[in-house]
Amino acid sequence: MIAGIELGGTKTVVAIGSADGRVIEEFRFPTTLPQETLGVAIEWLRARGQPTSIGIAAFGPIGIVPNRANYGKVLETPKAGWAGFSLVGCLASAFPTAGIILDTDVNAAALAEARIGAGIGLDDVAYITIGTGIGGGILSGGHLIHGALHPEFGHLKVPRMAGDDFPGTCSFHGDCLEGLASGPAIAARWGTPAHELPADHPAWETQAWYLAHGILSLVAIVSPSRVIVGGGVCQAEGLHRKINARLIEIAAGYFPPVLGGDYVVPPALGQQAGICGALLLASSGNEG
Amino acid sequence: MIAGIELGGTKTVVAIGSADGRVIEEFRFPTTLPQETLGVAIEWLRARGQPTSIGIAAFGPIGIVPNRANYGKVLETPKAGWAGFSLVGCLASAFPTAGIILDTDVNAAALAEARIGAGIGLDDVAYITIGTGIGGGILSGGHLIHGALHPEFGHLKVPRMAGDDFPGTCSFHGDCLEGLASGPAIAARWGTPAHELPADHPAWETQAWYLAHGILSLVAIVSPSRVIVGGGVCQAEGLHRKINARLIEIAAGYFPPVLGGDYVVPPALGQQAGICGALLLASSGNEG
Repeated sequence: MIAGIELGGTKTVVAIGSADGRVIEEFRFPTTLPQETLGVAIEWLRARGQPTSIGIAAFGPIGIVPNRANYGKVLETPKAGWAGFSLVGCLASAFPTAGIILDTDVNAAALAEARIGAGIGLDDVAYITIGTGIGGGILSGGHLIHGALHPEFGHLKVPRMAGDDFPGTCSFHGDCLEGLASGPAIAARWGTPAHELPADHPAWETQAWYLAHGILSLVAIVSPSRVIVGGGVCQAEGLHRKINARLIEIAAGYFPPVLGGDYVVPPALGQQAGICGALLLASSGNEG
Repeated sequence: MIAGIELGGTKTVVAIGSADGRVIEEFRFPTTLPQETLGVAIEWLRARGQPTSIGIAAFGPIGIVPNRANYGKVLETPKAGWAGFSLVGCLASAFPTAGIILDTDVNAAALAEARIGAGIGLDDVAYITIGTGIGGGILSGGHLIHGALHPEFGHLKVPRMAGDDFPGTCSFHGDCLEGLASGPAIAARWGTPAHELPADHPAWETQAWYLAHGILSLVAIVSPSRVIVGGGVCQAEGLHRKINARLIEIAAGYFPPVLGGDYVVPPALGQQAGICGALLLASSGNEG
């Protein structure tokens, strides 16, 4: 029995599924305090059998590098009651014979989109999600990138559009990519939430300009075969086409992978990417 | 017998060495045409025995992803006579029983610095070299990053320093990082070659500012445990300290790995990194 848990800031999903990441049965419920939230997931799983392995896709920051003291734990977080809680320890106590594999929610979604979604068949895929913040997960040569902590794609810096003096909304960095192109940044800049801006609003050219520059850094550093851009703020019709066009322009012929015009694509799995990724983590090991 | 070949634009090194990347004996000679250059290396190796494996660290662009049609070949290059030449094919003909592993010169140097140099003991290390161009090699979770082509770190874009209107020297992108911070960029901006600028020249604050912003993108995307910055343009006393200070400032407390103040360091292997990396490629497989 392969099990997955997607632990989000407001909702949690627990599921059993197939080795190729398909959900057989799932249960969604609100995320509350850690013992209570994991307790609900454990009870739901126990009613269905003994998992042989459990994949967890969790909100960050979390310790995901094995052999570090913080492995398996929620790190410093403003979310009350969660800092220091051991996700892996809690599940290992409940299911002592199960293999337990933990990764970030965005890495799990990247794995799912790469294996059974918009990056199917590719071993070098970047997945970016744009909502309240901007996050990124990267599969490189078939391995999820973890690094010393984990990627925080939203907080890199990009050039400013000529004449743009919007200060940005990131409380740490002001005009990092997240401060310029996340949902709150769009709302602050245009006075309207992203989902209310029509597809022909100039906001989307600005959005495409900044996202293309962030993606150029991805191309220069990890050379993905495809970049999947999703999240609540990327639903506007034609946005991916605008990003592709701007990326080809600024790459200036130098990066062959981007030249096809369909390099930046929307996700294929929608809201299911996280839980499918948790199942893939469970079935395939950590990939890293 | 473990063999390594470092194929550079102007010189080639062939060596035999130990499984841990130490050179036992080496021979340096000018790089000329491909058959002639490889011929010298093959003859030198044959006089010493039959290699069980050969690592090649080569100037780019080269095809380094197995199972692609261009694997093992030199790709489009202005270097006369080399485009389309199969490095792996040539060596496999000469030594049919040897395992042959190819990577870029900068990836090989990154591997050597990570395993036996300034990043010893770490599995997440970035290596940047700054000279005529800017290149980067990344070891992530113990695997060298290849991607769809290979990283071209120098060609990402960074913000501009307030008031800096230097147009940059990159023939593709103008003011990409390479166009702002490579050796030719420094020479064009200050009218003096980098090696003639004194350590207290304001050029080095500008250099540190731009390099710190490029490194911030590395931190956000692959989260290295350490960044090694080398190459002919990084010899100025105190430059690494300046980069560290600027990086801590722009990270603004958000990226714990960078906070120690010794995150950006000089290389430890100097001119030997490439050939040591070729030997490590030969002894350990491609890591990717």
